[in-house]
Amino acid sequence: MELWFSEQHSDTAKFSMKIKEHLCSKKSEYQKIDVLDTYDFGRILVLDGVLMITEKDEFVYHEMVTHIPMAVNPKIEKVLLIGAGDGGTVSQLIKYKSIKEITMIEIDEEVVNKCIEYFPNLTQGFKDERVTIKFEDGLKAVRKINNYYDLIIVDSTDPFGPGEGLFAKEFYGNCYNALNENGILINQHESPFYNQYKDMVTKMHQRISNFFEISQVYQAHIPTYPSGHWLFGFASKKFKGDVIDDSWKNFKIECKYYNEDLHKGAFALPNYVKELIK
Amino acid sequence: MELWFSEQHSDTAKFSMKIKEHLCSKKSEYQKIDVLDTYDFGRILVLDGVLMITEKDEFVYHEMVTHIPMAVNPKIEKVLLIGAGDGGTVSQLIKYKSIKEITMIEIDEEVVNKCIEYFPNLTQGFKDERVTIKFEDGLKAVRKINNYYDLIIVDSTDPFGPGEGLFAKEFYGNCYNALNENGILINQHESPFYNQYKDMVTKMHQRISNFFEISQVYQAHIPTYPSGHWLFGFASKKFKGDVIDDSWKNFKIECKYYNEDLHKGAFALPNYVKELIK
Repeated sequence: MELWFSEQHSDTAKFSMKIKEHLCSKKSEYQKIDVLDTYDFGRILVLDGVLMITEKDEFVYHEMVTHIPMAVNPKIEKVLLIGAGDGGTVSQLIKYKSIKEITMIEIDEEVVNKCIEYFPNLTQGFKDERVTIKFEDGLKAVRKINNYYDLIIVDSTDPFGPGEGLFAKEFYGNCYNALNENGILINQHESPFYNQYKDMVTKMHQRISNFFEISQVYQAHIPTYPSGHWLFGFASKKFKGDVIDDSWKNFKIECKYYNEDLHKGAFALPNYVKELIK
Repeated sequence: MELWFSEQHSDTAKFSMKIKEHLCSKKSEYQKIDVLDTYDFGRILVLDGVLMITEKDEFVYHEMVTHIPMAVNPKIEKVLLIGAGDGGTVSQLIKYKSIKEITMIEIDEEVVNKCIEYFPNLTQGFKDERVTIKFEDGLKAVRKINNYYDLIIVDSTDPFGPGEGLFAKEFYGNCYNALNENGILINQHESPFYNQYKDMVTKMHQRISNFFEISQVYQAHIPTYPSGHWLFGFASKKFKGDVIDDSWKNFKIECKYYNEDLHKGAFALPNYVKELIK
């Protein structure tokens, strides 16, 4: 038997990977969780049919949401993660001894359980004593926080299903309030290429720009995401995203994707992407 | 009937697009030429089953092989193109009034004929009086040229089939000789992500570095190419690829992808790509 997983990048374009083994399929309270083993990409996590991470290229996403804000403000100590149930972002954050507190708000406990079971390397970070995991709706949880965090990373699914509220106007305003005066907000910002994602890029950027003094967009090459051209939002109260603090070097963090030249390059967007967010 | 075109990115991963119409299928002396109309990407050109260009994202490739060398040395006047039968690179080059001579060596006349028929916008440039097209084997043709061109762009297929010789050691040496003392060589350099392409990146870079004083690699987001993360080689006798001549601005070239910040960013490679070419 040949087993293939396909993800629709649009109604009329799809990416398919051949499957070695369907390791897990479980319906949680919020979504369908699948873990598959592939030939090219190692194990992959699929939520409601949408590819979330692959072992082969997860490092790009997780390094780019973590080291970009840390290199801008190496003094970050208090971090709030929204989503991030696969553990990849936590694994990057705990590399910084200077970070004192990592709170992760993930709506779906089952995602965390399955990731601990099937992605042991990625989820090592959950054992770190600085990490607290709360199983709550990120949209609601952030409402209650005021002037506290140095960094919020929204490591969410796409803007449909359980992650939908994390793209709402209200949510960005609440993130602004939850951040202190040094606050930085990073969020996954979809892709500029396909039409259905493209409109989201514009909308999200407008919404975030309404609240934050500084609102920028940066990019990375994530081969297994639709189009491979993925965007992230960098919003802050005072820091510019493309200005690196030289003291970041002293952390001596080893990366497979990120470096300081690439950091600056990631903010140099193609003209057609600039058009989307102007 | 539903018609889909699939391209294998590896034996166990593929990208598929739904087809509106199969416009042309022709076996030339060298390869099978197909033109299809798609829902997401406009018309596409497929040679021996491999996707060459789509109307939707061809501009990324063609801008990046053209404006990068032109911004490094805006005095370029004599340009040799190897391959480039789809016309996209010529269309970018003719935007520069300062370029005096564009010689294109394409092995397959039938590719040019079909592109003129099915991609009229892309092939407008062929009518420019500075353009000479020769239907010859690029590998052999370059052997006869000495100390003449300012710029050679190798806009070829992958290193199998008719384009194979354009990745041979001998060819890069001949390009070096065909270039004058200001010479720049640009070539498509495959993708760093999938294993079968990855090895080629290393090999190609080693071969080019053997001949050229300066040999660098830069990257672009080309969504319809395998992994979407595509590399280009920049080799030269004296110019550094990431140093832009300020006078380039004066051309006032309008681009959809390229800009000067992006130019510098394109040379800022991820660590795992640097590893491949160190």
